[in-house]
Amino acid sequence: MTDQFADPAALDRAALEEGATFAPRFDADGLIPAIAQDAETGEVLMLAYMNADALAATLETGEAHYWSRSRGELWHKGAISGQTQTVLELRTDCDQDTILMKVRANGDGGCCHVGYRSCFYRSAGGDGSLAPNGVPKLAD
Amino acid sequence: MTDQFADPAALDRAALEEGATFAPRFDADGLIPAIAQDAETGEVLMLAYMNADALAATLETGEAHYWSRSRGELWHKGAISGQTQTVLELRTDCDQDTILMKVRANGDGGCCHVGYRSCFYRSAGGDGSLAPNGVPKLAD
Repeated sequence: MTDQFADPAALDRAALEEGATFAPRFDADGLIPAIAQDAETGEVLMLAYMNADALAATLETGEAHYWSRSRGELWHKGAISGQTQTVLELRTDCDQDTILMKVRANGDGGCCHVGYRSCFYRSAGGDGSLAPNGVPKLAD
Repeated sequence: MTDQFADPAALDRAALEEGATFAPRFDADGLIPAIAQDAETGEVLMLAYMNADALAATLETGEAHYWSRSRGELWHKGAISGQTQTVLELRTDCDQDTILMKVRANGDGGCCHVGYRSCFYRSAGGDGSLAPNGVPKLAD
């Protein structure tokens, strides 16, 4: 699927889970979920998806790149809005099918296209409802 | 796909993104990614997937339930290991295709089957390598 990263199918389970080879496990669509977490506050800002090109661009430039599933194109987060994300650290999980980035949110510090600092601005009740949870809206 | 939650296709974009109706957008496989974050430390512990039954069980019991893609069954996290996750808050994101839970990690405080407190115990270098990042291993 990509020759930019090691092939996870070539690793045994111990190497995949405890080894030193980065072999991201893209799914059948060539995507891997990537969580962006504010490096300073710990706030989880968003989850989006990367293909191999986006992950490579993220590592090369130090700014978060994703694959926009809705637009079907490489997405340099913040290129238009100014809300770029400087990637201070990029982690993967035990079976290498998720990315976690510690980021600094640039521009106005926002992340979400709806205007909030984090995309997770609503919390669920047990009754099927959502309510605002205090995540600030920046872009009103 | 499920009658346990509102149908996101019945909502317009404004209602989906800024409304008070919880209408989780399960993917074509009936799954939604769910991030577990330590409520106290802010550490991102893991990402796994929920189907509608797992999400409903999580809301009903207050303990994280996932869908195990490898075993093909409902997975009450910690039922065997003791590493249950008490869900203090459950959030969704702007377009309701991701879940974020603030949890208390029970048992020995671990999360990962490899023995670490968080699944994200390795960080990527620019050279295709992974290195330990200081996440403690509990179950040696």
